[in-house]
Amino acid sequence: MTETTPGWLAPEELEMTRARMPILYVDAVPVRVDDSGEVTHVGLLLRIGPDGTVSRALVSGRVLHHERVRDALLRHLEKDLGPVALPRIPASLQPFTVAEYFPTQGITPYHDPRQHAVSLAYVVPVAGDCMPRQDALDLVWFTPQEASSPQLQADMPGGQGFLLKQALAHVGCAP
Amino acid sequence: MTETTPGWLAPEELEMTRARMPILYVDAVPVRVDDSGEVTHVGLLLRIGPDGTVSRALVSGRVLHHERVRDALLRHLEKDLGPVALPRIPASLQPFTVAEYFPTQGITPYHDPRQHAVSLAYVVPVAGDCMPRQDALDLVWFTPQEASSPQLQADMPGGQGFLLKQALAHVGCAP
Amino acid sequence: MTETTPGWLAPEELEMTRARMPILYVDAVPVRVDDSGEVTHVGLLLRIGPDGTVSRALVSGRVLHHERVRDALLRHLEKDLGPVALPRIPASLQPFTVAEYFPTQGITPYHDPRQHAVSLAYVVPVAGDCMPRQDALDLVWFTPQEASSPQLQADMPGGQGFLLKQALAHVGCAP
Amino acid sequence: MTETTPGWLAPEELEMTRARMPILYVDAVPVRVDDSGEVTHVGLLLRIGPDGTVSRALVSGRVLHHERVRDALLRHLEKDLGPVALPRIPASLQPFTVAEYFPTQGITPYHDPRQHAVSLAYVVPVAGDCMPRQDALDLVWFTPQEASSPQLQADMPGGQGFLLKQALAHVGCAP
Repeated sequence: MTETTPGWLAPEELEMTRARMPILYVDAVPVRVDDSGEVTHVGLLLRIGPDGTVSRALVSGRVLHHERVRDALLRHLEKDLGPVALPRIPASLQPFTVAEYFPTQGITPYHDPRQHAVSLAYVVPVAGDCMPRQDALDLVWFTPQEASSPQLQADMPGGQGFLLKQALAHVGCAP
Repeated sequence: MTETTPGWLAPEELEMTRARMPILYVDAVPVRVDDSGEVTHVGLLLRIGPDGTVSRALVSGRVLHHERVRDALLRHLEKDLGPVALPRIPASLQPFTVAEYFPTQGITPYHDPRQHAVSLAYVVPVAGDCMPRQDALDLVWFTPQEASSPQLQADMPGGQGFLLKQALAHVGCAP
Repeated sequence: MTETTPGWLAPEELEMTRARMPILYVDAVPVRVDDSGEVTHVGLLLRIGPDGTVSRALVSGRVLHHERVRDALLRHLEKDLGPVALPRIPASLQPFTVAEYFPTQGITPYHDPRQHAVSLAYVVPVAGDCMPRQDALDLVWFTPQEASSPQLQADMPGGQGFLLKQALAHVGCAP
Repeated sequence: MTETTPGWLAPEELEMTRARMPILYVDAVPVRVDDSGEVTHVGLLLRIGPDGTVSRALVSGRVLHHERVRDALLRHLEKDLGPVALPRIPASLQPFTVAEYFPTQGITPYHDPRQHAVSLAYVVPVAGDCMPRQDALDLVWFTPQEASSPQLQADMPGGQGFLLKQALAHVGCAP
């Protein structure tokens, strides 16, 4: 069987590339907003890792070959929040920050043991119903204050807790 | 008759203040976006001035005392586009630029003979039906290419043509 | 004696205007950066209030009539840090956030009992020697971690502690 | 001879990866600024292609494995402008835009026949002397008005002319 889809990488090719190149990612912080655009809630995915540890995560994933950043955002949001979440992808691609996940700890606030990933991070208002699928167990909405709590921050590994705090600071939500 | 509304200025007081202080404004560029957030159209108000000259304008207006910037945006968008325009006020107050309208020409690209106005400028996706009222005759939707044309730019006085170009550059629309 | 300088307001006029209009401010977060642009230290002014309370503050002040935002930034930085601080005013006026100080508490994270001030906030690298004058006692440099500490945050009233945290989040400094 | 430097790719591996993954780039627009931060000049590299065609270019290049974005910016600026250019890498990694160069024309305003490159774009003030080396013949400084001219824009292929216009719009320079 031959794989001919452009942008597709065989597992061993992905491994090799991960050891040689920074991999382009997008991170999306799903939020509920009121009519004036103010963020009222932040959505976090609940994941259970292979070793049974519970963690919370933002919507995150690779940008594929020949895929626009906005299409990657849409694809990952649909994959994680379901087909009727109605995400409002920003009109401008200017991210609120660029998160550099290094395989080595301590170089930046972000860490990914698998790879060097560079992620464009966006706040994405979501207007519809969210029905997590794939490997996520659940999507839970938190107030900005709850999302800043040390307890919840501790459940977000690899610097995603800090990335969430950066998103909240960007939209003006005090802890 | 005594006016007691906070934030209200008698005409002569507004005149006096305009001669002494920069006045805080908001500028909103209404846009239509597709599902991936890409801008497909820009909305411009058609205005006829007291001297009969036709001009095109962005949604623009003062921020009042004790009014949040997001509420000022909402108020001016509703005033100019009607009650069912469904504007999506941005989650973050970070503007794409700050437009400084000076009463003297040539200090910045923006000019307002009446006052020194400093305006926070935002791109605002609009999802509903637009029914201009007040002093606007009509709202016309243009493609980004049409909006960048020299002809249309010439109809936007005081530097608003340049502000529109800045908005289009910010959202990645080439002329 | 008659004051004729444009942009000047008699104390009673400033009082009256403060009760009627949002007042335009700038906030600058002075930082030291290394050759790669990474923030190594944040500078905070030490102030002693009329009642003897010690507080820490960002560089902050009004934009005057017919003054550009960049000139207001330069003027306040020179006023607070001295003439040889060599501040690097940003090339773009896009602020990292807009801080809305309300006279009423709880509307936004910022509060100013005197007025409704709307402040454009910038991170400003400072390369030279800082010699605070005016009403500031001292300028002290803190690491980003020190600047995020609850103790130091408690010394920054009116929401400036949160504004500092927003600046640190914007430049990617984890607490 | 075996290459063991991490981040290095053999030519054939780079070719293969380019056909499978978006490649992370940085684009830097070198500028001269005055004391108030206002852009007075834009620096463009003069290049002569293998076929003798003259073109102008921004400072641009790949981000390597395990390299921070700020270090990639510094490396490419030093490579193209020489060791005493004294570039002021921004304190925040928030780019003014993300330029998506597609191997297929017309998907975005940017185009690179060799690859799908996604580039984080920054305006970088440069304070020192610039001495282009490598494959660049010369660095020429233009006023913002000259840089916006159709003639000069025509010399910047692959959408870099538009990226330059976006940079000028971001810093508030009208054509």
